[in-house]
Amino acid sequence: MKGMEEILENIKINSWVQNFKRSPRQINKSHESDAELIEVKDKNSRLLAVTIDSVAEEITEGLYQDPFTMGWVTVMSNLSDLAAVGAEPLGIVIAVSVEKERDEKFCREIARGMAAACQKLDVFILGGDINTTPTISLSGCAFGFVPRGEKITRIGCRTGDVVFMSGWAGSGNAMGLVRLAKLPEELFPENFYRPIARIKEGQLVRKHATCCMDTSDGLMITLDQLLRINKLGFVVESGWDKILTPEVLELCERAKIPHWFMAAGIHGEFELVFTIPAERVNLFLQAALEIGFQPIQLGIVQQKPSLEFVLPSGKKVEIDMTPLRNLWPTAGSDLKRIIQEHHAWGKKWGLE
Amino acid sequence: MKGMEEILENIKINSWVQNFKRSPRQINKSHESDAELIEVKDKNSRLLAVTIDSVAEEITEGLYQDPFTMGWVTVMSNLSDLAAVGAEPLGIVIAVSVEKERDEKFCREIARGMAAACQKLDVFILGGDINTTPTISLSGCAFGFVPRGEKITRIGCRTGDVVFMSGWAGSGNAMGLVRLAKLPEELFPENFYRPIARIKEGQLVRKHATCCMDTSDGLMITLDQLLRINKLGFVVESGWDKILTPEVLELCERAKIPHWFMAAGIHGEFELVFTIPAERVNLFLQAALEIGFQPIQLGIVQQKPSLEFVLPSGKKVEIDMTPLRNLWPTAGSDLKRIIQEHHAWGKKWGLE
Repeated sequence: MKGMEEILENIKINSWVQNFKRSPRQINKSHESDAELIEVKDKNSRLLAVTIDSVAEEITEGLYQDPFTMGWVTVMSNLSDLAAVGAEPLGIVIAVSVEKERDEKFCREIARGMAAACQKLDVFILGGDINTTPTISLSGCAFGFVPRGEKITRIGCRTGDVVFMSGWAGSGNAMGLVRLAKLPEELFPENFYRPIARIKEGQLVRKHATCCMDTSDGLMITLDQLLRINKLGFVVESGWDKILTPEVLELCERAKIPHWFMAAGIHGEFELVFTIPAERVNLFLQAALEIGFQPIQLGIVQQKPSLEFVLPSGKKVEIDMTPLRNLWPTAGSDLKRIIQEHHAWGKKWGLE
Repeated sequence: MKGMEEILENIKINSWVQNFKRSPRQINKSHESDAELIEVKDKNSRLLAVTIDSVAEEITEGLYQDPFTMGWVTVMSNLSDLAAVGAEPLGIVIAVSVEKERDEKFCREIARGMAAACQKLDVFILGGDINTTPTISLSGCAFGFVPRGEKITRIGCRTGDVVFMSGWAGSGNAMGLVRLAKLPEELFPENFYRPIARIKEGQLVRKHATCCMDTSDGLMITLDQLLRINKLGFVVESGWDKILTPEVLELCERAKIPHWFMAAGIHGEFELVFTIPAERVNLFLQAALEIGFQPIQLGIVQQKPSLEFVLPSGKKVEIDMTPLRNLWPTAGSDLKRIIQEHHAWGKKWGLE
């Protein structure tokens, strides 16, 4: 069984959480849900879902250079957490901390990105707080309602459930790699990265799925976190050509980047990963079709608590994400080392 | 009439807000409420109150040096916005962005400050987001319910209403001045500054008051903002010995600081300023007494749209906060100039 505390990021979260008492109103424990689920004694039988998420490192590390992207992702990352619990959004509030030397145009572009993301999903910014700080930080807090009877969290999948993803993976890591490795911008321009939170899809998923989590940290890290929380494992049977965005496949081809890098990196794309009981799959897919939603079947949940990929040869390889996940907080700014380590593990596992 | 757009801070807020569409669910317009009030079609007849507030400048500018204070104020500043709309808190989520080089003890003290503030008011931290950034920024987002029939905002006072404050003013500015002017710490130690959001009091105030706003920006700036929003004026009849915290009075005495500085500065104390119709004052004060709440009577609302103070001599002076409010965003780090300007205006107005 893979422990939660093998992962530095989880240890860090726990070191904060241990200082706080749990609310008797809170339905989920920490790590167990993308958004906090709160009992509000509502006669309409709804739970309040709340999440807070900041975009800061992505900017200060040079990943996002276009202020429109910064604003867009601030909104979408929060709405994606609501999507993962199937919530119907009530709105979002924002806290904007910008450097003194930024001009009005820069701020207007952040706001335009936020407004465009809101408009895309018919959500509204309700208020906020503005600060002047030495380095930029954009926070959002989104909230919405979930019917109490259709509560879904990261926990609850069972052996034999079918694993789906709401759409193609890889755009976040493609953009990140092009930017940080200083590859030619045209290989994957920043404006290719316009993730859209799966709000409508999440509301369908909550009716059928046994667990759900968004891929804000990338596909493989999401699967790794889900298997730790659920004390189960996943077998991914689908090939990269079905999993990755066509533009990402093209990038891999042109720049000779192993496909699996695009699923392994920490900069995700805000799709949903979820599990559907085998006997409900047809019913779910039919309902999905009716709303124009075409989820990608990734594989199945297995008893063995590990992440396994079926190679094109039919061979099954076991992938332990622990060393790669723990690279980011220790070697986060040393991209060369991160790439080297990924190549080393990829070769060991037969993924490249 | 004093316009909202005479104030640089209001212009800045408007420049952000103009980019966003208004939600049909939102009850309040911008500037009109400390927390956003959202229609949630609740069979229990409640409105959702939501606020977001960051503590960042106070840290990077050296005002808060004790991480316990940083955590405490992050929680209290948010809860105070809920108090100002009379909300019953459901909880708070936090986004913590801390520098890489900060040690575990520093983070633990922030968390301890947050936990202590929550415990003080029986509120819970429900979740959060952790980031590593070049400069620290702590954001909170608090939310709660207000009965629809007892909605209160910053707007609604009428001529003749009596103006109250929920408790003594000045601790925020006292701490700020001692810190930034590098006066001896013992004159007003940082741990004297432990503001407590007036949650319980706000729930009483909402039943009686015509408008309410917290003093997060200090007493006189709060009064100035309220009079602009309400297109009315205030006469403050109470003396400084009744308005200021005893420890603040002592600081003024020992360090020869004019009393009015402690009400004029921008670093507030999270009390509530509110207005009660004259005919309800006795009823309100009786109800306040029953919960051990002793509000301070400041003065009255007048038709003339200006802020007036009655001096000990009985003379009434008109105070225009515009030049002082606009000093902070332009000369924010030049404390010497800020103090000089305050002295100049104070002498002109006969306040010192």
